[in-house]
Amino acid sequence: MQQRLDAASRAAALAELAGWRLVDGRDAIEKSFRFADFGAAWGFMSRVALAAERLNHHPEWSNIYNRVTIVLSTHDAGGLTALDVTLARQIEQAASGQTV
Amino acid sequence: MQQRLDAASRAAALAELAGWRLVDGRDAIEKSFRFADFGAAWGFMSRVALAAERLNHHPEWSNIYNRVTIVLSTHDAGGLTALDVTLARQIEQAASGQTV
Repeated sequence: MQQRLDAASRAAALAELAGWRLVDGRDAIEKSFRFADFGAAWGFMSRVALAAERLNHHPEWSNIYNRVTIVLSTHDAGGLTALDVTLARQIEQAASGQTV
Repeated sequence: MQQRLDAASRAAALAELAGWRLVDGRDAIEKSFRFADFGAAWGFMSRVALAAERLNHHPEWSNIYNRVTIVLSTHDAGGLTALDVTLARQIEQAASGQTV
């Protein structure tokens, strides 16, 4: 069972993860990504889907054409855990050099 | 350029497309699907992504684990067109026998 991040870990995670921000009214983080077109967005999403399966931890996400918005939180823990930070790092790797 | 559906075509489309409904406050249709798990939801989404590319018409959609919600509307036409009905039919084929 994952523990919710304490204030210091939360601050460190947000400092490390460029562009991620806390979601209003929820213990969750989110970021939006923009790609050249749907194919590029889908390629990114496919990499994130594989990362999510590896971690057995899945995003809440939406896609409109070339845009992907991702919200991360750990349902079982009722908030943000180290698992969200790990997935966010892998999402950053998947997006690296792919966004416009 | 696609033309927005007239009232009769709209009614016929909604009668044909089980589970699809008009979105409040927008000229769009939506449906939510539920699958056994993330892998099954992702398989469905992959089929829909290919259909969207074939049609060059893309959904607005979101996914949380085993659930996928899809909104269809034609941006260029400012509302619902025959293209949305075509994509909805292909989405139904992609979901057929896959939902729980």
